[in-house]
Amino acid sequence: MSRILDLNADMGESFGSYKMGNDEKLLPLISSANIACGFHAGDPNWMKHTVETASKNMVEIGAHASYFDLRGFGRRSIPSSIQEIKNDITYQLGALQAFSSSKPLQHLKPHGALYNDAVENTQIAVAICEVIMEFNPEMFLLALSGSKWVEIAANMGIKVARESFADRTLLEDGSLAPRSDPGAVLHEVDDVIQNGLRIATEGRALLKNGGTIEIESDSICIHGDTPNAVKMAESLRNELISREFLIQPLSKTINT
Amino acid sequence: MSRILDLNADMGESFGSYKMGNDEKLLPLISSANIACGFHAGDPNWMKHTVETASKNMVEIGAHASYFDLRGFGRRSIPSSIQEIKNDITYQLGALQAFSSSKPLQHLKPHGALYNDAVENTQIAVAICEVIMEFNPEMFLLALSGSKWVEIAANMGIKVARESFADRTLLEDGSLAPRSDPGAVLHEVDDVIQNGLRIATEGRALLKNGGTIEIESDSICIHGDTPNAVKMAESLRNELISREFLIQPLSKTINT
Amino acid sequence: MSRILDLNADMGESFGSYKMGNDEKLLPLISSANIACGFHAGDPNWMKHTVETASKNMVEIGAHASYFDLRGFGRRSIPSSIQEIKNDITYQLGALQAFSSSKPLQHLKPHGALYNDAVENTQIAVAICEVIMEFNPEMFLLALSGSKWVEIAANMGIKVARESFADRTLLEDGSLAPRSDPGAVLHEVDDVIQNGLRIATEGRALLKNGGTIEIESDSICIHGDTPNAVKMAESLRNELISREFLIQPLSKTINT
Amino acid sequence: MSRILDLNADMGESFGSYKMGNDEKLLPLISSANIACGFHAGDPNWMKHTVETASKNMVEIGAHASYFDLRGFGRRSIPSSIQEIKNDITYQLGALQAFSSSKPLQHLKPHGALYNDAVENTQIAVAICEVIMEFNPEMFLLALSGSKWVEIAANMGIKVARESFADRTLLEDGSLAPRSDPGAVLHEVDDVIQNGLRIATEGRALLKNGGTIEIESDSICIHGDTPNAVKMAESLRNELISREFLIQPLSKTINT
Repeated sequence: MSRILDLNADMGESFGSYKMGNDEKLLPLISSANIACGFHAGDPNWMKHTVETASKNMVEIGAHASYFDLRGFGRRSIPSSIQEIKNDITYQLGALQAFSSSKPLQHLKPHGALYNDAVENTQIAVAICEVIMEFNPEMFLLALSGSKWVEIAANMGIKVARESFADRTLLEDGSLAPRSDPGAVLHEVDDVIQNGLRIATEGRALLKNGGTIEIESDSICIHGDTPNAVKMAESLRNELISREFLIQPLSKTINT
Repeated sequence: MSRILDLNADMGESFGSYKMGNDEKLLPLISSANIACGFHAGDPNWMKHTVETASKNMVEIGAHASYFDLRGFGRRSIPSSIQEIKNDITYQLGALQAFSSSKPLQHLKPHGALYNDAVENTQIAVAICEVIMEFNPEMFLLALSGSKWVEIAANMGIKVARESFADRTLLEDGSLAPRSDPGAVLHEVDDVIQNGLRIATEGRALLKNGGTIEIESDSICIHGDTPNAVKMAESLRNELISREFLIQPLSKTINT
Repeated sequence: MSRILDLNADMGESFGSYKMGNDEKLLPLISSANIACGFHAGDPNWMKHTVETASKNMVEIGAHASYFDLRGFGRRSIPSSIQEIKNDITYQLGALQAFSSSKPLQHLKPHGALYNDAVENTQIAVAICEVIMEFNPEMFLLALSGSKWVEIAANMGIKVARESFADRTLLEDGSLAPRSDPGAVLHEVDDVIQNGLRIATEGRALLKNGGTIEIESDSICIHGDTPNAVKMAESLRNELISREFLIQPLSKTINT
Repeated sequence: MSRILDLNADMGESFGSYKMGNDEKLLPLISSANIACGFHAGDPNWMKHTVETASKNMVEIGAHASYFDLRGFGRRSIPSSIQEIKNDITYQLGALQAFSSSKPLQHLKPHGALYNDAVENTQIAVAICEVIMEFNPEMFLLALSGSKWVEIAANMGIKVARESFADRTLLEDGSLAPRSDPGAVLHEVDDVIQNGLRIATEGRALLKNGGTIEIESDSICIHGDTPNAVKMAESLRNELISREFLIQPLSKTINT
């Protein structure tokens, strides 16, 4: 019996002369790329380049939309009205879509503080879903597995893909342990791979306190900015494949 | 016999708390709005607002794409490769299009220095046309009447609309007299209206030296940033209507 | 018996082609100018211009330092560490000082959200005072009269000038009534002038609920962005002068 | 007989989350640091950090002032009036100076396109010298050895330090061979060190065509962004020291 899983990673986070990430090495390992749209990272030239290299690697693309905050890399919650958040996301979706004229974007994954705010704030979660319905109702939303946001999206009829993080532990309510907590981030390659495999094969993820919790995942997020990110991604992918998983973009994992 | 003419104006040039232009008063007078896309002016909130108010006024919208230069208001020629220019325009087209999900943008009109560079530089003229072909080949290009750019666009199969400026005089080769030349810009309301009417009814425009030259125009550009811009626009519109012109967007003036 | 009072106003808030405020008309009416430093408004060209025109009007200058937030005009509280806030203010102080090479800046007045945050947050209040001590301990701080911030500054040995707002009402604890409250902002010219005079002559300011409260003021802030700002400022100034007030910059009102 | 030479390098070119350069490894090897001021690179937090780490390494600091062009990393000549260029440089000088309150900046070195423009354009060369005279006439200018700019500065009474590039070759008129020319940039570590030593010991630099030309140098620029930059810098420094050179900041090499 083979199972289907998506691997997603953040891409196109370079800006002008500033390079970031390991896009070229990660692209062959993933199935969905979250591409920065110029608000926290990226610029039109890097977006063009990233859309093209993703396409060459048969990787589906989505918008990694953010608060307008290049200086803070989108990691700060910029005070904004709900309508302003919708407008910022709409702008970024359109800008990225323009570089893929022949093919609709597969998905939207809010970045950094905007992602966290959607997990915490129902109004923001709803607003993001509304943008998808207005921009392209066929587009997937990539949202934190187990969050209320996933429920909201499902209730609104959005195609939502539940994502888990192989290198993060959860609290007992299923939410991500805050980065500042000891044990919130897994640093050892083996721990990350073990957690990723447990998520994929058993549907259980590691708790910060050491136990596990049930979790359903359509996609696992691979972080690309740590020193051994590529090695981690490669190992996890190989382990999954050896267990007869098919690594496939969201459009194939869910839409069946 | 009634004739059809488009009146276009630049819109949505406010940014954050900074207001610019007389959009609300000009919108009822024009048929096509060139909307700033955040590179020389505008931001996602103003774009959303401007698209909506244009729609309420039955005015067709297009992208007023620019070099990335908020500080210089897009009036400076920012050194860029041809590919960078294409990427910048693509980004802006997509961003604006996203605010008009149900209806394709009517046109692209490059702004400021980018417009002038397209008039002067064949490679840039071609690049702009290529962006249209890739983004949406049904979109109009609004380009300076009499310029080589118009020819290039026509040869490439682009739907090109030729625009004239009621408040500017021309040199004998048909090009715009540089703003710095005495007599290049008409300041008196009566002179502007007279020139606009001559362009529309006789197909002749004022030369800087006082004579006139043959010119074909599908659209006349109304400037909105001068003190009596609204009065000028209103008078010209009324005079045209009294001469049985129909003021209609490009999609109706040309596509017939 | 003549009394001395400072009138301050925000200046230099234009940016590139975007004009804001009535600087030229307000400058002859005030004694201290708070000049934008490029973070919420202003740019090097406007800063140069504003420093020069202030100097011609014998108006003392200070830095109107802000969070880095041009899009939000500095009215949003951008999440920042205390050290980041200090660095942002230091940068802006230096940038403005460079345009006044022969004369030290008279004062620092934080702008918008940063001003409000200093009123509410002791750590930020302290940080701002530390920047003054490191940059130039002779510089005045312009801070909300009655706030804990004033006490903190005084305890740290900072020359602090207490400012009041003629067009705002207070709560019973002496804090500014939030703008969103009905009655928080005075809109009628007569009300503003009456309140300004009461502050200056009686040392009492209007409460939102209609009574008055004791307040000590070294400077009254004049807002320049409302339609009748200039008229208001002129009337208040004239009324003060007719009551034998001397309108003088902070360096003369306090340092005696 | 010992001789004195300055080694300078560009520092503080990181921005927000984007890292650039090898500052920590290069700082112990140089005597003067050109620190980015937020226009092409750098931000207030990186400026604070870089000023402090330079100070710990006993390295003198100067402003690496640029056109306002983060996206283009200051490598594009942004059309600007002479006054605008002066204002931009003044702003950056002040901003950096504010992070070094107890000690005046040692020098100004224009960055990228602004440096090249000063070499080519007399008006810009003069303008830069005027800024120094207004901001701090004791400050050094670091300018291309052999250029007219050096003469202009000397004639205006500016303390000018002549810099050479160990990894670049010259044309027969003494100007830098354009980067795009084959042979303009030396890539081999040995070639760079040999050229640097020839400049320092013989006062002769390599021509693009293979010969050498006389050149006087107060400072040699070390580039920090190439893969083996640190190794190159270390070798050159050691070779110089073994030949009894003292590596000292400009303030010690010239002011004697």
